[in-house]
Amino acid sequence: MTPLARGFPRAEFEARTERAQALMAKAGLAALLLTTEPELRYYTGFLTRFWESPTRPWFAVLPASGAPIAVIPAIGAHLMAETWITDTRSWNAPDYDDDGVGLLAETLREQVPDGGRIGLADHIESHVRMPLQSLQALIEALGTRSLVSDEGITRQLRLIKSGAEIAKIRRAAEIGGRAFDRVAEIAHAGEPLEAVFRAFQILALEEGADWVPYLAGALGTPGYGDVISPATDAKLGPGNVLMLDTGLVWDGYFCDFDRNFSLGAPSAAVDTAHRQLVAATRAAFDMARPGIRVSALYETMRAALDLGQDCGRLGHGLGMQLTEWPSLIAADETRLAPGMVLTLEPHVRMAGGGMLVHEENIVIGDDGAEWLSSPQSPEIRVI
Amino acid sequence: MTPLARGFPRAEFEARTERAQALMAKAGLAALLLTTEPELRYYTGFLTRFWESPTRPWFAVLPASGAPIAVIPAIGAHLMAETWITDTRSWNAPDYDDDGVGLLAETLREQVPDGGRIGLADHIESHVRMPLQSLQALIEALGTRSLVSDEGITRQLRLIKSGAEIAKIRRAAEIGGRAFDRVAEIAHAGEPLEAVFRAFQILALEEGADWVPYLAGALGTPGYGDVISPATDAKLGPGNVLMLDTGLVWDGYFCDFDRNFSLGAPSAAVDTAHRQLVAATRAAFDMARPGIRVSALYETMRAALDLGQDCGRLGHGLGMQLTEWPSLIAADETRLAPGMVLTLEPHVRMAGGGMLVHEENIVIGDDGAEWLSSPQSPEIRVI
Repeated sequence: MTPLARGFPRAEFEARTERAQALMAKAGLAALLLTTEPELRYYTGFLTRFWESPTRPWFAVLPASGAPIAVIPAIGAHLMAETWITDTRSWNAPDYDDDGVGLLAETLREQVPDGGRIGLADHIESHVRMPLQSLQALIEALGTRSLVSDEGITRQLRLIKSGAEIAKIRRAAEIGGRAFDRVAEIAHAGEPLEAVFRAFQILALEEGADWVPYLAGALGTPGYGDVISPATDAKLGPGNVLMLDTGLVWDGYFCDFDRNFSLGAPSAAVDTAHRQLVAATRAAFDMARPGIRVSALYETMRAALDLGQDCGRLGHGLGMQLTEWPSLIAADETRLAPGMVLTLEPHVRMAGGGMLVHEENIVIGDDGAEWLSSPQSPEIRVI
Repeated sequence: MTPLARGFPRAEFEARTERAQALMAKAGLAALLLTTEPELRYYTGFLTRFWESPTRPWFAVLPASGAPIAVIPAIGAHLMAETWITDTRSWNAPDYDDDGVGLLAETLREQVPDGGRIGLADHIESHVRMPLQSLQALIEALGTRSLVSDEGITRQLRLIKSGAEIAKIRRAAEIGGRAFDRVAEIAHAGEPLEAVFRAFQILALEEGADWVPYLAGALGTPGYGDVISPATDAKLGPGNVLMLDTGLVWDGYFCDFDRNFSLGAPSAAVDTAHRQLVAATRAAFDMARPGIRVSALYETMRAALDLGQDCGRLGHGLGMQLTEWPSLIAADETRLAPGMVLTLEPHVRMAGGGMLVHEENIVIGDDGAEWLSSPQSPEIRVI
């Protein structure tokens, strides 16, 4: 692989911060309060797998001007010092009397004038990562300053990826593609699905993934029951369709796509269904360009595959998280713009029960879409 | 490895549910509302890596009697049907108009009498995994029924692991131990730390991990700066201490321990520090038995290593999550009881800067503690 730098230049974080501050000024917000991993990482560059530990809350305050201020457990201060953040305030967490709320309130009172409004993500696909008791105590401690909706500012910014972000997602997708190309090495009749899952994660790491946060998959004849189940000890057998769907990470950015494999020659039904899936994906890809609504991509795939209106979403955003806004559903009126990264993820119901799902990753350019995953040919892969 | 069954017998979920219901009756709670992965999994057995996707909220309602009711996105209904749960209500998520709040409110109104109280985890180490807007809409929709603290009921139950849970944690720790025993295969002078991280995850998978949600590590001479950083491209060199700390999973249960490796013969300072760490761990292990306070384990290690009172926590609970309550800190007055699983995780500061950290996993039995990780000898491992 071509060498690709980890991290981002400082200018990228400055630009993200300034764009947020321009939107905050319009919305009358004196600060943003950030509590989740992608929010903190987006503005500060703080990258660690330690979020796997649910013990400690982590905060950052994005003031009306200037760089973000980190308000974090002492255990993270050393790593935060390696980012562009220079103002880090830390406490010795966990502290059963005051687990950061006092320090956070003090920081917000300092940065936000009396009566000022502080934006907090409150919309779909977000949550507030701190104990509810702490949130209530914070609201109390802020007095005349109020916590209000962030009006989706961070969501809006993250929707459009920079060139450096797209390069990382492309790298993750390349790694995933090479791992899928090696599935014949690990998937044999008689092998239990859980061994295939384990071996696929090894392939992903061998091909360069930093880690493999997500792997789902399924085995079915002809279709499978769902696409979120963990591996079982069911053994691969002739005529099965094996599906593997991975969200692997390179430098903090995900790919998210799947491949289907027929064990032995596919039945006519599986062959046809796979061709339909690839054609529907291609139809959505062909129409994807700036100005088109997300709902149109959904509608194109839905109609091509004769799915009902309750068929669920047929793709989604992708980047620092496995799934991000927007959702490819009828109700999503987001207009495509250059720099958006999406999955196209149609499915078909099989006559014998179950379904087949196909997924690719794309990025929107100035004149159309580009593949980030190397697109699958109409024929299902056979092993 | 000895074969070990995945999942739990139905009786285990029934017992968890009944214990919670007895505590709910005492606390005057007509239901619990569950929103996070471990809460849902603890009572229902719903195990999936799909929580990596932040898009959708997932709920379960634990009523005053009877089995939990799942209120979940349609995409999870097929997998939930494979658990012991028979009452699953689902909606087509994401729904921009009402992402499950209406269905959840309806379920709670049905299960909770007018004026009744519904418990929600609000304490340290918890958060409410749903959009803040949805939480506010839910409170509104509940009318006279109120959302109040769950008084730590689920936390209290999860603190004491069953035999079946302990067997899974022990299995995870065995896998981790075998991976650590193979580090000499992958860690060589000149190798970048990020390649070692990748290779260690492969070892963990080869030895039987289902997946490796957590890996941290560090390289230092003599000590390292923190224990939460991702891998860098720094190359292993003679005299370095390499630390790898993994939280790998078997059937949904974690181990969490580390090992230190000296590249070449250790300096006298490193040799001494490592012996002190192992001795401090051993001292805490030797005193651990039912009735002893968690703070006493902390104090024993702190005093043995001459650490200040602000040294941070020296271990924690472990199980369905990488880190759980209690925390080994001075303020934690929890009394040890049979079935508690803990990490002992002391550190020492090195004269040349940085620190060394050692970690083992133990379970409290009727008369004392048992090792879950195969305990490290006083001598640091040399490669």
